[in-house]
This record gives sequence, structure tokens and C-alpha cells, in this order.
Amino acid sequence: MLRAAQELDYRPNLMARSLRTKVTRTIALVSDTLASDPYAGRAIQGSLAAAVAHGHLLFIGETEGNPVIEEKLISDFLDRQVDAFVYASMFTRYVRVPKQLKGRPVVLLNCLTRGARPAHHQVVPDESAAGSAAADALLGAGHRHHIHLVGTPAPNVFAARERLSGIRAALAEEGAKLAGVVECDWWPDSAYDAVSRALDDGLAASALICLNDRIALGAYQALRDAGRSVPGDVSVVSFDDSELAAWLRPQLTSIALPHYELGWQAVEKLLGPPSDPAVTRLPMPVRARASVGRPPGE
Amino acid sequence: MLRAAQELDYRPNLMARSLRTKVTRTIALVSDTLASDPYAGRAIQGSLAAAVAHGHLLFIGETEGNPVIEEKLISDFLDRQVDAFVYASMFTRYVRVPKQLKGRPVVLLNCLTRGARPAHHQVVPDESAAGSAAADALLGAGHRHHIHLVGTPAPNVFAARERLSGIRAALAEEGAKLAGVVECDWWPDSAYDAVSRALDDGLAASALICLNDRIALGAYQALRDAGRSVPGDVSVVSFDDSELAAWLRPQLTSIALPHYELGWQAVEKLLGPPSDPAVTRLPMPVRARASVGRPPGE
Repeated sequence: MLRAAQELDYRPNLMARSLRTKVTRTIALVSDTLASDPYAGRAIQGSLAAAVAHGHLLFIGETEGNPVIEEKLISDFLDRQVDAFVYASMFTRYVRVPKQLKGRPVVLLNCLTRGARPAHHQVVPDESAAGSAAADALLGAGHRHHIHLVGTPAPNVFAARERLSGIRAALAEEGAKLAGVVECDWWPDSAYDAVSRALDDGLAASALICLNDRIALGAYQALRDAGRSVPGDVSVVSFDDSELAAWLRPQLTSIALPHYELGWQAVEKLLGPPSDPAVTRLPMPVRARASVGRPPGE
Repeated sequence: MLRAAQELDYRPNLMARSLRTKVTRTIALVSDTLASDPYAGRAIQGSLAAAVAHGHLLFIGETEGNPVIEEKLISDFLDRQVDAFVYASMFTRYVRVPKQLKGRPVVLLNCLTRGARPAHHQVVPDESAAGSAAADALLGAGHRHHIHLVGTPAPNVFAARERLSGIRAALAEEGAKLAGVVECDWWPDSAYDAVSRALDDGLAASALICLNDRIALGAYQALRDAGRSVPGDVSVVSFDDSELAAWLRPQLTSIALPHYELGWQAVEKLLGPPSDPAVTRLPMPVRARASVGRPPGE
């Protein structure tokens, strides 16, 4: 083999070594899409940092959620003999791990498999605890009544379902409950329209829990146009802690999605000390800012 | 060689073939940082799409602008025998191509080398034309006077220098000029403070050219708090066309940074038909929205 190599005049390198050792010290991050949420890039950055910390290099690939593209992509990575895979979703959701990856080192980043005994490590944000934290932020400021949810909590959306269950559980512990839901898409325009309409119809909210920061932006705009102040008239709490949260006036209290940490932990599970496959739920930190105050009149 | 391979029991794969052909069909994107600007992820996505269109896979690596990390990273990529490199900066700037990359296929993404004859393709946004386009948006609406720049145009920042020179050239063509500069950092808070102070001091602006969308957000907030309407009292135009631009009320006219296209074109220069190295300046599209109107009183 060495002689053949010398005849072919290539320098002894990692690829040649990898033919013997079958280790290329490369991993592949296969995601549905990187760009739908600009902040998801932080998950890639966390994955990259952990890979480099373990002496590995990182391939990335996008499937656009298309199984045909996914199969080709994974096959191309297998051709390059990558050591391990990060299978990632930009929105937290349930997935099936592609057959080609069976029996290989795989970690799931921001996604989960159904079934009691996971075959792979799965790293997701703790959305249910985040829901409780959002409710606790309001409860802690004295809110018990007139707390409305803003954003449609579609039951097939993991973050929506878990956030809502956490909110309800925390409110129930204090004998409180949601006064209502202002249904809208998770975008500023839709939230602006829905909250404006609700205020016109006499919405008597003293606090809004917005299902993400984009909704909170639309809610802020609607409250302002209706002459309601934040937090004097209405307190607002939200999720994601995108950079928008710190740019709004007043700055928005938001429960942070730990994108970087998700990426880092996923790769750490993959390349760090071996352990039994399990679901890891990472804490979502509370970023307390200026949008939560006492209920009006107290 | 084949017999040795069989003895070692590996399937004939691309890595083995690459020892003969010295082609791995992989490229590496080496950037200073991916995450400082969330929208820069679109440049990676464009690079990735073009790489896949040419049957290549994409490694990514971050140097944090640290030459020691950069040297190690490039050396690690060379160990994996990547075919070609995308050398990327998240902010447009002048760079030196690392010595290790001399004589290899390299394209510069969002960065430039000094000197008359470029050794590599360089793909950057046409910031000077963007500056002219911003000024033209105001001139077209009838603005000639009381046009102020917001944001410190630091001469060592490529985008600042080129945008300003484009603005000045377009205004001069119509016999107009900037009435002044409201100095601030390129962030909402700094812009809010600076514009608020300027308005307190009697700033008589009928139009603001903000050097990016974040500045425009701060300017909107300051104008609102001072009781000035956009565009009734003051027209606003900006650069970047981040998603923020479409979320503001009224929606913000902004000259778009073509992140995806920059990434795509860079890799296209690298893997497409050979051509002489040159600087390619990509157009920055005007996203005309609702923040520009006639000057007040006309």
C-alpha cells in the first residue's frame, strides 16, 4: 500500500491514513434549512465550535425537507466517509431518522423521534419550562387576571404546544388561567392586525404572552397605535430572545432560545464521552427587561 | 493498489478514488465569523446551493479573525484535500489572502485585495451604486434640501465609505448635497439617542438616509417620540433590507444586501467555467416601500 502510494506521488495525508483507520475526523450537519430563521445560524456556529474543539471539521448540507435531496446528500457524505452526523431541524419537531443513518453515530439537533427508547441522543430546548417561566414573569409582577395569549398555538407545532402547556401549568399553580387567546400567525403583520382588532373590540388585557418576538413586535405596534403604554397599561412577555427583543422600546422580556448551546451540546454528545442515548432538554434562559410591570391600578 | 484495498476491506469510494484523481469534490468556506450578522447565513446558503449544483460538498470553518486559528484551519482543510476555497468576510473589507492558499483555487466572498491585478475572483456588493440608489429614491420623490445622513461614515469601513460616495455623487448630479450628518454607531440605541438629541436641538430634516436598517429603527423610534410622522414629516431610506425593514410601520425603503447571491456567485466563479480573476460588484436591489414621500409642504 505504501509503495502504491509512493508511485502515485501523494503526500501522506489524513485521507490516506483514513483508508487504514477509517476515521476522517469530519462530521456532517444535515439540516432541513439553515436560512428560514436567521438566528438558527447560531446553532451551526455552536456545532462548529464543538467539532473543532474535538479536532473535527464540519460539512454542512441542506435538504429543504425533501427526502430525495436528503438521500442523495447523505449518500454523498457517506462517500466522503464522514465519521458522524448531526441531523438538525431549524424548528423543533418530530422526525424519522433516515434509514441510511441506521447504526451510525448520529445526534438529533432540535428534533426528536417518537417512541419510548431513543436510538440516538436528541437535544432540544425545554419549551415547556420556558412557558412556565413566561407565566412566572407575569405572576411575579402581581398579574393574576386579564392575561391573554397572542399567537395561534397550533397543536402540531412543538414549540406552541409545549409553551402553552407550560404557561397553563404555571398559571394553574397560582389559581390563575389565561383569559383568552388572540389568534394570529407568528409574524408582526398578522399580530398587529389581530391585536388591533381585539383592542377595537374591547380587549381588556393587562398582560400579553406573545408566542414569539415577532408577534410581540406586532403587538407593541398595535398597543402604541391604540394609545396603550407598555408596561404601564399592558405588560408583554415573549419567546426566542431574538436581537429584536433588546431593540424594542421598552426592551422586551423574552425567554431565550439557546441556539448556540443546542449546537454545542449536540456535537458534544456525538464526539464526547459515550453515554446512553437520551433526550436532553436545554434550559431557555429568561431575559428580564422592561416590558413587564405591575398590573394597572395596583 | 486494488488488491491492497481489498485486503483492507473498504468499499471503493470517493476517498479512494480521490487518491488517484486528487479530486475530492469538496470545497471549504473559511470565514472570519458566521454569526455576527444573522443575515450573513444567507451567504453560506448561497455558497452551499452553488456547491451542490456543481456536485461538491461544503465544509465550513470560522477563524474569528485570528491568524493562528486561520492557519490551523486551512492546514486541516488541506489535509482533507479540499479542491478549492471560499475565503469570506462577514463585513465587506480588504484582506490579505493567507500564504497557504497561494496557487490554489480561491475566490473571495465579500472581501477584496488591494492592488491593480487581482490574483483571485472577488465578489462584493456594489455599495457605491447602492448609495446612489438611496439618494435617487429621495431625489425622485422631490427632495433636494434638508437631507441628512444618520450613522457615522467611518472612512475605514468599506460600506460606509462607498455608500457615502455614492450618495454624494447622486445628489451632486442634481445640484443637491447633504445638509448634515447625525453621528452615531450603527445600532438602534445609538441612533435613537443621536436623532432624539438632534431633534431637540432643532434638526430641520425632511429626509434621513440611514446607513443601515438598525439605525433606521432607532431613527423611527426617535421621530415617533418627537411626534414626527414617517413619511409625512420626514422620509427615511436605509441599507441592508434585513427582515426588520418590512416589519417596521410604515415599511422601510431599503437598498438590499444580496447575501445569497454573493455566496452563489462566489462559488460559481470557483467551480464554473474558468475566467480571468476580476472584481465582481453585485447590484444591491432597491426595495421601495412606504417610508419615502414628497417633502412636507409640497
